[in-house]
Amino acid sequence: MASRWYTIVVDAANPALMARFWAAVLDYQIVFEQPDEVVIAKDTETYPGIIFVPVPEAKTAKNRLHIDLNPDNQDAEVARLLALGAKRVDVGQSGEVTWVVLADPEGNEFCVLTAREQ
Amino acid sequence: MASRWYTIVVDAANPALMARFWAAVLDYQIVFEQPDEVVIAKDTETYPGIIFVPVPEAKTAKNRLHIDLNPDNQDAEVARLLALGAKRVDVGQSGEVTWVVLADPEGNEFCVLTAREQ
Repeated sequence: MASRWYTIVVDAANPALMARFWAAVLDYQIVFEQPDEVVIAKDTETYPGIIFVPVPEAKTAKNRLHIDLNPDNQDAEVARLLALGAKRVDVGQSGEVTWVVLADPEGNEFCVLTAREQ
Repeated sequence: MASRWYTIVVDAANPALMARFWAAVLDYQIVFEQPDEVVIAKDTETYPGIIFVPVPEAKTAKNRLHIDLNPDNQDAEVARLLALGAKRVDVGQSGEVTWVVLADPEGNEFCVLTAREQ
């Protein structure tokens, strides 16, 4: 028997703020909240969700794991995410890639793909 | 409209090797494979899956994002994962936490939780 993928855990300076940003990005709910752990999920029955936990250390390098998002409309979604507090970042992508690289309020890189069937 | 969470992307020195490790961990299939991208998923209809992409740089710090696994039996699953090539790592967890911290073949930390309902 293999393991089930339960969740993604994100180290954060401010888990409450980060959980709210990502809940807005994904239209997820905050399903649990304590100072040492804030959990968001599509609903309480759906995993993996995302868990934000406080850590003392700051981000020091490009993340080895990142989230890719599938929008209905890439341009409109990038504009919405920038308004939510995301920032454009350069991780060495060329000007010709089809995805847009953004970072969340604590600098975690993520990509907004071109819209695709799912 | 929010974005849908499409996938997790993992930077890798050896995407083919890493995809096979994680496919074995999660009982996922390799659903796409090219030198610059290897994709695993539960099946071709289920997202998020995991995409492994080659990067030139090595891992330099504890990951800000990590995967938590929900096993049927924690001890048995840890033994299975160690046999697959995982290693125990110390990220500062105390001896009293209920989860086991392992790292994949390229050092990405992940946790095996105690078994829980899902």
